[in-house]
Parts: sequence; C-alpha cells; structure tokens
Amino acid sequence: MTDTAHTELIEAVRFDEKGLVPAIAQDHATGEVLMFAWMNRESLEKTLSEMRACYWSRSRGKLWVKGESSGHTQKVVSVRLDCDGDVLLLSIEQQGGACHTGHRSCFYRVADNGRWREDGQKVFNKDEVYGAA
Amino acid sequence: MTDTAHTELIEAVRFDEKGLVPAIAQDHATGEVLMFAWMNRESLEKTLSEMRACYWSRSRGKLWVKGESSGHTQKVVSVRLDCDGDVLLLSIEQQGGACHTGHRSCFYRVADNGRWREDGQKVFNKDEVYGAA
Repeated sequence: MTDTAHTELIEAVRFDEKGLVPAIAQDHATGEVLMFAWMNRESLEKTLSEMRACYWSRSRGKLWVKGESSGHTQKVVSVRLDCDGDVLLLSIEQQGGACHTGHRSCFYRVADNGRWREDGQKVFNKDEVYGAA
Repeated sequence: MTDTAHTELIEAVRFDEKGLVPAIAQDHATGEVLMFAWMNRESLEKTLSEMRACYWSRSRGKLWVKGESSGHTQKVVSVRLDCDGDVLLLSIEQQGGACHTGHRSCFYRVADNGRWREDGQKVFNKDEVYGAA
C-alpha cells in the first residue's frame, strides 16, 4: 500500500498541540483493554501500512514498534476513530503481554476498598524478556 | 464515604502537567469501549465517591457529570489504573448512549479501504435529547 491509501484516514484525525493522538489497544478476542499509548502522524501511517501497532514514545522521543525489543507485537485487526476525531481505538491480536511489567494488560490494578489491588494476569517474567536491571 | 477513603487511590494517580488523566469507559456487560475523556483530581474524587462517572470538560472548563443533560449516566462498576499510574479504565453500566451523536459508542467509525466507514449502533436521536441546533 502506498501512503496515498491512508491520506483520507489520517486527514480526519485531530492531533493535539504536540502532534499526538491517544490510542487505546483492545484485545480482539476477549475485548480486554490492554494498553494506552500515543501516536503521531508517522506512527499512525506506519500502523495502517503494516497493520502492526506502532506508537510514539513520549519518554524516548521516537517511534516505538510495540514488541520490537520484547517480541510482544500487536497485529492490528481494525482501527477506529471517535466522534471528535481525536482518539483511536485499535483492535489487536497481542503476542504475550502488552505490559512491560509482565502482565497481559497494563490495567492490572483495580480500586478495592480504598486501595489499588493487583488482580491482573501475569504472562511473562520481565527480567527474562528485558534483562534484569 | 469520606474523602479520606480515596486518598490512597488518588495519590497513586499521576496527573499530567494540566492536572488531568485520561479515562477510558468500557461497557461492563459487553466489553465495548464506549468513550474516552479526561479527569482532574476533583472529578476522580467525585466518581469514586458516587460511583457515577464524572469527567473534566476541557472545552467547557468545568466538571462534567456524564448524562447530566442527556440522562445518559454511567454507573461505575469498577475503576482500574494502568502500570504507570497515568491512565484510568472505568467499567460502567451505560444508560442510553455514550456518544453525543446518538451512538452507543463514540468509536462508531472503522477504517475500511482508506475511508472511515460508520458501523456503530445508533441508540438515540440527538436532536430529541439535546434539542435541535
């Protein structure tokens, strides 16, 4: 596919003053919300072209192909845009876990009696995947 | 419940430089992602106290109890926090539709052959709910 194939899609997206748009990644099979990240124009273009999730890392200031170091890639099944054109929702097939902590989902803590209680599924050992600190 | 009951929860949340945190609202029954909005400390406190979603309207610059004008309130079943402490995920019971356009979900457009195609479920007539423009 050429860039031209995505021009109409990308033109409808309202990037914020930093050139970014929030992206929610949801498990295609289970509906579980796995993570939240940001995209700039280039990462959205790359995601649409390859149908593999690519975000913009705000901390590292560069494109971030999800899973490039961990192998936990995200195959993109569909991409949705919200009513205001300023939030994306990806339906994905997640390899391994989405969260760098080793959890399947980044949202592994739930409010319970005034505390955040961990109840998320651990699917890998982060020291084995990223190397011990 | 007193404010004190939520101190530990709120202290773990990393609000951004504008004092806001993204909040994703997901249908408790179906897992459908319904909307995305922002919360400040006060709206999160109110949400946790009343277990009814309250956001911060960036456009209006004020607290926004979801459904206060439309009747389409969101009963909060659970609140989750992500690994970095800077994104919230609400599991909700949505009255009517979450989207001001009349759709059940704000994410009613899907990328399809280079265009955004509407495929979302319409659940109310916005002119009847909000009044014709």
